[in-house]
Amino acid sequence: MSRLPFVPGRRTIERTAMPTISESYSAPDGRTILEAHERIRGRIHRTPVLTSASLNALSGAELFFKCENLQKTGSFKIRGATNAIFSLDDGEARHGVVTHSSGNHAAAVACAAAWRGIPAWIVMPENAPAVKCRAVNAYGGKITFCEPKVTARTTTAARIQAETGAEMIHPYDDDRIIAGQATAAKELMEDVAGLEAVLAPVSGGGLLSGTCLGAKGVRPEVRVYGCEPTLADDAYRSLKSGVLQTLEASETIADGLRASLAPRTFRILRQWASGILLVSEAEIVAAMKLVGERMKIVIEPSSAVAVAPLLRAGGLGELGCAASGRTGRPRIGVILSGGNVEMKW
Amino acid sequence: MSRLPFVPGRRTIERTAMPTISESYSAPDGRTILEAHERIRGRIHRTPVLTSASLNALSGAELFFKCENLQKTGSFKIRGATNAIFSLDDGEARHGVVTHSSGNHAAAVACAAAWRGIPAWIVMPENAPAVKCRAVNAYGGKITFCEPKVTARTTTAARIQAETGAEMIHPYDDDRIIAGQATAAKELMEDVAGLEAVLAPVSGGGLLSGTCLGAKGVRPEVRVYGCEPTLADDAYRSLKSGVLQTLEASETIADGLRASLAPRTFRILRQWASGILLVSEAEIVAAMKLVGERMKIVIEPSSAVAVAPLLRAGGLGELGCAASGRTGRPRIGVILSGGNVEMKW
Repeated sequence: MSRLPFVPGRRTIERTAMPTISESYSAPDGRTILEAHERIRGRIHRTPVLTSASLNALSGAELFFKCENLQKTGSFKIRGATNAIFSLDDGEARHGVVTHSSGNHAAAVACAAAWRGIPAWIVMPENAPAVKCRAVNAYGGKITFCEPKVTARTTTAARIQAETGAEMIHPYDDDRIIAGQATAAKELMEDVAGLEAVLAPVSGGGLLSGTCLGAKGVRPEVRVYGCEPTLADDAYRSLKSGVLQTLEASETIADGLRASLAPRTFRILRQWASGILLVSEAEIVAAMKLVGERMKIVIEPSSAVAVAPLLRAGGLGELGCAASGRTGRPRIGVILSGGNVEMKW
Repeated sequence: MSRLPFVPGRRTIERTAMPTISESYSAPDGRTILEAHERIRGRIHRTPVLTSASLNALSGAELFFKCENLQKTGSFKIRGATNAIFSLDDGEARHGVVTHSSGNHAAAVACAAAWRGIPAWIVMPENAPAVKCRAVNAYGGKITFCEPKVTARTTTAARIQAETGAEMIHPYDDDRIIAGQATAAKELMEDVAGLEAVLAPVSGGGLLSGTCLGAKGVRPEVRVYGCEPTLADDAYRSLKSGVLQTLEASETIADGLRASLAPRTFRILRQWASGILLVSEAEIVAAMKLVGERMKIVIEPSSAVAVAPLLRAGGLGELGCAASGRTGRPRIGVILSGGNVEMKW
């Protein structure tokens, strides 16, 4: 059971009929997220929240790292995949599942499908890291490679879906996925009191949407920021312009962040995200090295994207913390999304 | 307080006068190790013991990793250094401390001396990793570089000792250091029941001596093995020949394992260690990568030396486990000695 009541938005709790966070559009509501957490709780890790005196000193904040790099399959993606696949009824699950992913969602779907005992067809871009392809293989997923472009991914997955009758488990444009991803921030907020802001990487927006809903469900006043490579800045441009922007391809080292928002996640982020912070490739690499050297944990580049803004001059100001006038160091949560990276030694 | 009685050797416990493990030579006795643990307990981490389904499958054993890479200063060395420096009376501490070390003991002495509020002079070989030199600097240690040879280290440290009047804190040839290092294995044995064997890297033998005394103090029948690079095989040759062998220099990637046994540690290991396992440089690198990829934790090459024997064909046989005739997987402890390594991304 949760340690805090899970309050969607600023609404009063109705145990028997929890309201949606916003009824103005479709998004997982508080009850859906609670149900997702109950559904996946026994299958995944409640990952630890780590702190680092060294990174606190460098950032000027009190940082709380939600370690989804230590999650099963090495990333948060198993949360959404498990929720989606165990939400299927037997008829829907009969022909297996299909998805497209640069890696972590792929491994998560393969793993959760294996738990459910059904086949998983996985479309991956040719430039997906070898370590992620090996993981999909290890879980018994059937890989089809495609061009490293968003359109190639979706058309290949649609073709396989038509051929096999498998259920599509989209990596982010799916309320079941978003509700599952929301449980990471929900756990973080339950485990750490008084967080002012939470940072998470953004790609297709499943994690960031879930982080908004999961974090604000526990503490409505928390601010949630997305972090994105400048080389894949579609979410930044979308939120700034108010018009959904897409990204056809990106060469950012953050291989998990090369997708674009969907209309569903765009709408959630417009309402709930406080902003998008851009980081350079050099900042990503420096943050990844620093976390390895000081915290002795392995994070992948996509995770480092959410650490990097905290390490630069004025980083806390970008989060609205310096101007808060509060005494003491701001308490900030960071979702370390995954740890699947080719080790270079 | 310890959760298990700390029984030295197979002797009966005498709460008021704990016997030495062997009275045939000088070594820290059970009481000394208990006192060391009490002395340092409030200053260091009781590090977690991690497990990995993936490494269990690869090794055929149930492995329990004592994560001294997550220890303060990034290695077990802070245990011995803290015990030694806080054992000094005010007169002894007055002129500070001096030591020689390839890195982790250096950082630990600098850190513990800063806690005590006294200066620390540190002699380091020129080829010590930059990450370890930065750590010594960060703790306020005063570095003097020397040739990367054992004799150059000791003569330089002796000269500084003569000049400053500082107290020598030898990295391993010191009962206070050995008693401190023993607390890591003591904690591991207290936290995990029924370990058949424990593996630790060996260089000067402080950690391995302490591991023998600390582990057997809790569970006398446990077998303790040292692990050593073939490129720095002095402990292997010493125990095999019965005559202390030295190593003048080594180019092993395991930069923490380039020292040689001292007479004190040699005598302890001859009596208590069950054997020394040699590993190749390629095995060290592969083990370090595997732990990073599967466990998402950063370990330095010296730590990987104690993982590598478990990953090779016949590894369990070398530990006397395959021949034990017992059903079920053998339960084996591994001391992950440190995590101070230059990240390569």
